[in-house]
Amino acid sequence: MITNTYFANGNEVQLFEQAYQQRLPVMLTGPTGCGKTRLVEHMGLLLNRPVVTISCHDDLTSSDLVGRFMVTGGDVVWTDGPLTRAVKAGAICYLDEVVEARHDSLAILHSLTDHRRALYLDRAGEVVTAPDTFMLACSYNPAYRSSLKELKPSFRQRFVTLAMRYLPAVREAEVVVAEAGINPSTATRLVACATAIRTADHAFHFEPPSTRVLVTAAQLIASGASELEAAEACILAPLSTDGAINDGLREVAVASLATADA
Amino acid sequence: MITNTYFANGNEVQLFEQAYQQRLPVMLTGPTGCGKTRLVEHMGLLLNRPVVTISCHDDLTSSDLVGRFMVTGGDVVWTDGPLTRAVKAGAICYLDEVVEARHDSLAILHSLTDHRRALYLDRAGEVVTAPDTFMLACSYNPAYRSSLKELKPSFRQRFVTLAMRYLPAVREAEVVVAEAGINPSTATRLVACATAIRTADHAFHFEPPSTRVLVTAAQLIASGASELEAAEACILAPLSTDGAINDGLREVAVASLATADA
Amino acid sequence: MITNTYFANGNEVQLFEQAYQQRLPVMLTGPTGCGKTRLVEHMGLLLNRPVVTISCHDDLTSSDLVGRFMVTGGDVVWTDGPLTRAVKAGAICYLDEVVEARHDSLAILHSLTDHRRALYLDRAGEVVTAPDTFMLACSYNPAYRSSLKELKPSFRQRFVTLAMRYLPAVREAEVVVAEAGINPSTATRLVACATAIRTADHAFHFEPPSTRVLVTAAQLIASGASELEAAEACILAPLSTDGAINDGLREVAVASLATADA
Amino acid sequence: MITNTYFANGNEVQLFEQAYQQRLPVMLTGPTGCGKTRLVEHMGLLLNRPVVTISCHDDLTSSDLVGRFMVTGGDVVWTDGPLTRAVKAGAICYLDEVVEARHDSLAILHSLTDHRRALYLDRAGEVVTAPDTFMLACSYNPAYRSSLKELKPSFRQRFVTLAMRYLPAVREAEVVVAEAGINPSTATRLVACATAIRTADHAFHFEPPSTRVLVTAAQLIASGASELEAAEACILAPLSTDGAINDGLREVAVASLATADA
Amino acid sequence: MITNTYFANGNEVQLFEQAYQQRLPVMLTGPTGCGKTRLVEHMGLLLNRPVVTISCHDDLTSSDLVGRFMVTGGDVVWTDGPLTRAVKAGAICYLDEVVEARHDSLAILHSLTDHRRALYLDRAGEVVTAPDTFMLACSYNPAYRSSLKELKPSFRQRFVTLAMRYLPAVREAEVVVAEAGINPSTATRLVACATAIRTADHAFHFEPPSTRVLVTAAQLIASGASELEAAEACILAPLSTDGAINDGLREVAVASLATADA
Amino acid sequence: MITNTYFANGNEVQLFEQAYQQRLPVMLTGPTGCGKTRLVEHMGLLLNRPVVTISCHDDLTSSDLVGRFMVTGGDVVWTDGPLTRAVKAGAICYLDEVVEARHDSLAILHSLTDHRRALYLDRAGEVVTAPDTFMLACSYNPAYRSSLKELKPSFRQRFVTLAMRYLPAVREAEVVVAEAGINPSTATRLVACATAIRTADHAFHFEPPSTRVLVTAAQLIASGASELEAAEACILAPLSTDGAINDGLREVAVASLATADA
Repeated sequence: MITNTYFANGNEVQLFEQAYQQRLPVMLTGPTGCGKTRLVEHMGLLLNRPVVTISCHDDLTSSDLVGRFMVTGGDVVWTDGPLTRAVKAGAICYLDEVVEARHDSLAILHSLTDHRRALYLDRAGEVVTAPDTFMLACSYNPAYRSSLKELKPSFRQRFVTLAMRYLPAVREAEVVVAEAGINPSTATRLVACATAIRTADHAFHFEPPSTRVLVTAAQLIASGASELEAAEACILAPLSTDGAINDGLREVAVASLATADA
Repeated sequence: MITNTYFANGNEVQLFEQAYQQRLPVMLTGPTGCGKTRLVEHMGLLLNRPVVTISCHDDLTSSDLVGRFMVTGGDVVWTDGPLTRAVKAGAICYLDEVVEARHDSLAILHSLTDHRRALYLDRAGEVVTAPDTFMLACSYNPAYRSSLKELKPSFRQRFVTLAMRYLPAVREAEVVVAEAGINPSTATRLVACATAIRTADHAFHFEPPSTRVLVTAAQLIASGASELEAAEACILAPLSTDGAINDGLREVAVASLATADA
Repeated sequence: MITNTYFANGNEVQLFEQAYQQRLPVMLTGPTGCGKTRLVEHMGLLLNRPVVTISCHDDLTSSDLVGRFMVTGGDVVWTDGPLTRAVKAGAICYLDEVVEARHDSLAILHSLTDHRRALYLDRAGEVVTAPDTFMLACSYNPAYRSSLKELKPSFRQRFVTLAMRYLPAVREAEVVVAEAGINPSTATRLVACATAIRTADHAFHFEPPSTRVLVTAAQLIASGASELEAAEACILAPLSTDGAINDGLREVAVASLATADA
Repeated sequence: MITNTYFANGNEVQLFEQAYQQRLPVMLTGPTGCGKTRLVEHMGLLLNRPVVTISCHDDLTSSDLVGRFMVTGGDVVWTDGPLTRAVKAGAICYLDEVVEARHDSLAILHSLTDHRRALYLDRAGEVVTAPDTFMLACSYNPAYRSSLKELKPSFRQRFVTLAMRYLPAVREAEVVVAEAGINPSTATRLVACATAIRTADHAFHFEPPSTRVLVTAAQLIASGASELEAAEACILAPLSTDGAINDGLREVAVASLATADA
Repeated sequence: MITNTYFANGNEVQLFEQAYQQRLPVMLTGPTGCGKTRLVEHMGLLLNRPVVTISCHDDLTSSDLVGRFMVTGGDVVWTDGPLTRAVKAGAICYLDEVVEARHDSLAILHSLTDHRRALYLDRAGEVVTAPDTFMLACSYNPAYRSSLKELKPSFRQRFVTLAMRYLPAVREAEVVVAEAGINPSTATRLVACATAIRTADHAFHFEPPSTRVLVTAAQLIASGASELEAAEACILAPLSTDGAINDGLREVAVASLATADA
Repeated sequence: MITNTYFANGNEVQLFEQAYQQRLPVMLTGPTGCGKTRLVEHMGLLLNRPVVTISCHDDLTSSDLVGRFMVTGGDVVWTDGPLTRAVKAGAICYLDEVVEARHDSLAILHSLTDHRRALYLDRAGEVVTAPDTFMLACSYNPAYRSSLKELKPSFRQRFVTLAMRYLPAVREAEVVVAEAGINPSTATRLVACATAIRTADHAFHFEPPSTRVLVTAAQLIASGASELEAAEACILAPLSTDGAINDGLREVAVASLATADA
């Protein structure tokens, strides 16, 4: 079974807690799988608050967040959405990949992220004031740079921003061992393989392999797959759909798997 | 607790009040976080009028503003939207970032912003005449220049326009002290840091840090964060997603933090 | 209080009345704030017909104009829209900025603007024949030239077109005095300021200041604002969001304010 | 009162009637106001069939044509649209500017325009076979050439195409006299004015003035407007929104008005 | 009255029948009016199966094909669409111009066109297995090459493809005689006219005249139109909206009409 | 009758089973018709789990996947979608061509594809935890490279990726014999024909013929079609709509059919 242990990588736990004390929203940035979701879950345990997670996307409307009227027994009854439920419960509301959401969804957050700390439910004609224990956390990955999908600077300035990174190699190997139950030398080789590809990143332009894929590869190995099979299926194949790039990366990966243990 | 004190920066309070006397709508322009929302809240207290705030966005329809028919008990009943409620109550209605709204939302404002001062609810077949105490205030940030999202000149000419700016440095530091409860020398250093970045603005093309982010940084410091940690998380990280730009600005910021107090 | 006096500027009142006698629709063209809406209201009084005004926009559907079925008491009942109500009442229906409307809204006007003079309510299965007193008036501003939003020539040919212009300076100053109650020399200076900017128009490419903004500025002055404050807030600030252009125009404006009275 | 007399301009009446005998649909092409709508109304009288006219536009759906389910008394009842009503009544259904309609609206016509002569109401689960007296007539103006809005060749090949033109000058003047009741020499001058502009067409790229606008101008003259006022408001002003082009055409028009009678 | 006789032009009848025996779907390709719809109707008679025809277009949703829930008596009842009805009846379902349909409409066909031969009605929670007599036939015209509207290769590979062509001239003339009842020499001249234009095709880029338009022209002639009038209205006018191209083709057509009989 | 035998082509069965043991989702990649759907069906039998297949497309919403509220007896009742049903049943849910789905459909998968293994039904206010036997399998074809429709790297990294290929020629011929019941030498010629075209692929840029089309061709041959007729209708005609390309490939195909047996 997968444990939910969080491995800190800097001052992010301290700053998150200070933002919580000051009732300030936080924005987590960093590459895929560097631990943003895990940090939020960890802080929920640490601060003893429930976490409400919402995966943002193109079609997420403000109604999906705050609620809508629904027909019940011939009548129309207001039904809270997950954001409203989180505000009322004083929970940590986590908007994953907030940059993907529609603009109306972002506008609804304005009054929650300044001195008002309130949610205006215009359609229900209600104002919900957030209790002190409510906290808003958002995340996005700055590596996806698209002019269509940039967060506006005025929106970014509403948050305390915590820039996250991958763990150092030795720490990352410990995570892989802890989560997949494989031996440390295999974990070290998988991390070396990921590090080699991440270093090659600037030349190839793709999203580097996350800690998550290393754990996945380790799990396949724990089930009997060879290291090369697991690296191929979990680390290399998802990187790119361009065969030439993958061939180049495969050489890098195979070499690093072979030499890391030495 | 955050007070709602407003720090005036010119003749904006006087002109706002004169527009109110003449029953004219106002348009507030200026950079992020220079105090537009605070001015409107301040004028609400000064003129003893409630303020109804609406954050505009891409998907805000005229129905969201004026109201819609809703099913209740098998029947369809008209339900006023926030703009209609504000008109009827003789409130100040504040449309934040009005440039983001859809065109139908802007067209609905025409009859409210000329000599008619009335809201035409075509779907309800009703005309709501604004009482003398009703006032419309809008805001937008001219720094976001997009051909798709320009307000039409004929629309801008319907408003008394108040162009707002940042406070002078000494006044801004007083605001930071008053709102976050930190000592003046730290506040001075944070303002110096912001001023250094704002001065660098023309070269880098980004939205400069607002007074709001200085208050946020000061709050983190009040909770135990170092000045550099707070400046990094609240002032620098939200500026840009381009690492090279941020590195350049970090040097500017660190230097100004170090020397401002001297 | 603002009076509704109309100041004629040519043969537009005569031609409007002749079109009314012949049951022909009219199209008013001209720059922002030159008096198109006022002319229609004036003709309503002169011809003793009510005026139904509809501000057109991107999202105005034909259903918004002619009506729709709505649920009432479990049943669906047809509810006339403002155009249908205007036709039935023999009113003047005024479509402001008709070029903004969606194509279905324009198509619905075809049968009203030729020898048929009837409104086909396809969804209600009804044909409403216009009484002789019904008149359709539309307006648009040819200065907004956009290939996406051109009226089709075949549509323009359905109307008697009245091309409107600003009043001559002396007449315009009389309007400002009459509407805002300020002294004539201030009104003359405001008109001189507007004329100077309108003359500079060809170089700067923006919508010139309308008579409306002069009245607005005069109203602020009547409330105690200085001439320069009022000119800045009502005439200059709405012109453009480009600082350099505004600086250039400010010089023009200040010079004309200073010398007009001499 | 306007009479509905049709002035034939070739073999279009004969071919329309032959198509009717053979139960074939017709497509009328030609410039604005050359008489397409009048021809259809004339043929309705001649063939003793009612005419159902539908103005096509961007938002016309197939449901707008064939009908839809509507809630009545808690139940859902199918309600025929104008096309279905025309088919059932054996009427002439006239789709004006068919090129503007959405593709689903055109697809619904396929089975009506080949040997099947039937309307498939998929949503109602019904097939309506057209009686022999049903006829489909469409029109479009090939002068509007837009790649987005071309009729597909396979669609055009489903119709007998009647290419229509303006009347010869002498005939056109007779129409103007008959419809507006002005004297023949004024009508001749108006037609000469239109002919001069139509001849200038190739240089200026705009839709030439239609017979309809000549009748409109004549009606204004009959109400007391001068010939120049009427030509300006009805013929020149709708031609173009480009001032330079209109100035050039005004010279052409004034010259022709002055000399035509000589 | 028009008979439904089919004139075969190769092995298409044999292959269609073999595909039917093997329960394989067929895709008919070829130019406008070469007989695709007639082939499907002919095969329906030959195989003794009803034919359900659906004209595809931009707005055809999967719900239009498979069915939807509809309110009846206060309750919601599933109502089969034409595709579902065809599957249940073991009919031939013919999707005309399938390339026009929306992608969701095509995806719904996947399970019907591989070894599953079933229709998944996700919204109704039902799986409809096709009886052996059910057959899917689609058509499209490869001459319309548009990157936006290409069928995906994986979709095309799901079908037995029958590429259809025009009949040889002698056969085509027989069809024209049989369908319109005119004399063979006129039919021969009309076919010669079409052949001349089809041969000129590569230079002019338009959809060549179909057998259908020859039958239409012949029908007008049978009603009294001259050969030239009929060729103009049915063959030439629909070809192109470009006057210059049509003038060139008219010469080709007139010459071929004059000489074909010789 | 077609059997559902699966012919393995590497370690894909082993890795799929190991991913199932570790409760990891899999992503199948590879060209059209290489056996992705068959592998999933085979694994369903092997692992003794039902398979729920969903064909993804442009218009597939998250509601189509997880369910929606529907009116029943005047009330609104939540109805599970196919994904929710699959999660609850502990089935293998197979999203075919997942790259086609809308982003909201992909976002709904996030919590199912990480350590949470849960489905958040925000609209129903329910969290469905997947049983250990639930597995998510997706597929996509990397040959369709479109910037608009790329899966995000962060999404791809959530899966164990199995890259699939065509079978070797001898194995593929065995499949054709087994599925269509033709003699081995014909099957060998069809495979040679496909291999020749696949080899020509890099020059022509089209999707190569799949194993599926070889089986289809073989079925037509079993019904009496000649090898050339079957290759034309099933292998060549679907390849491309460009006549020149098809002519070139026909030569390749005919040559390979003629010589393969020798």
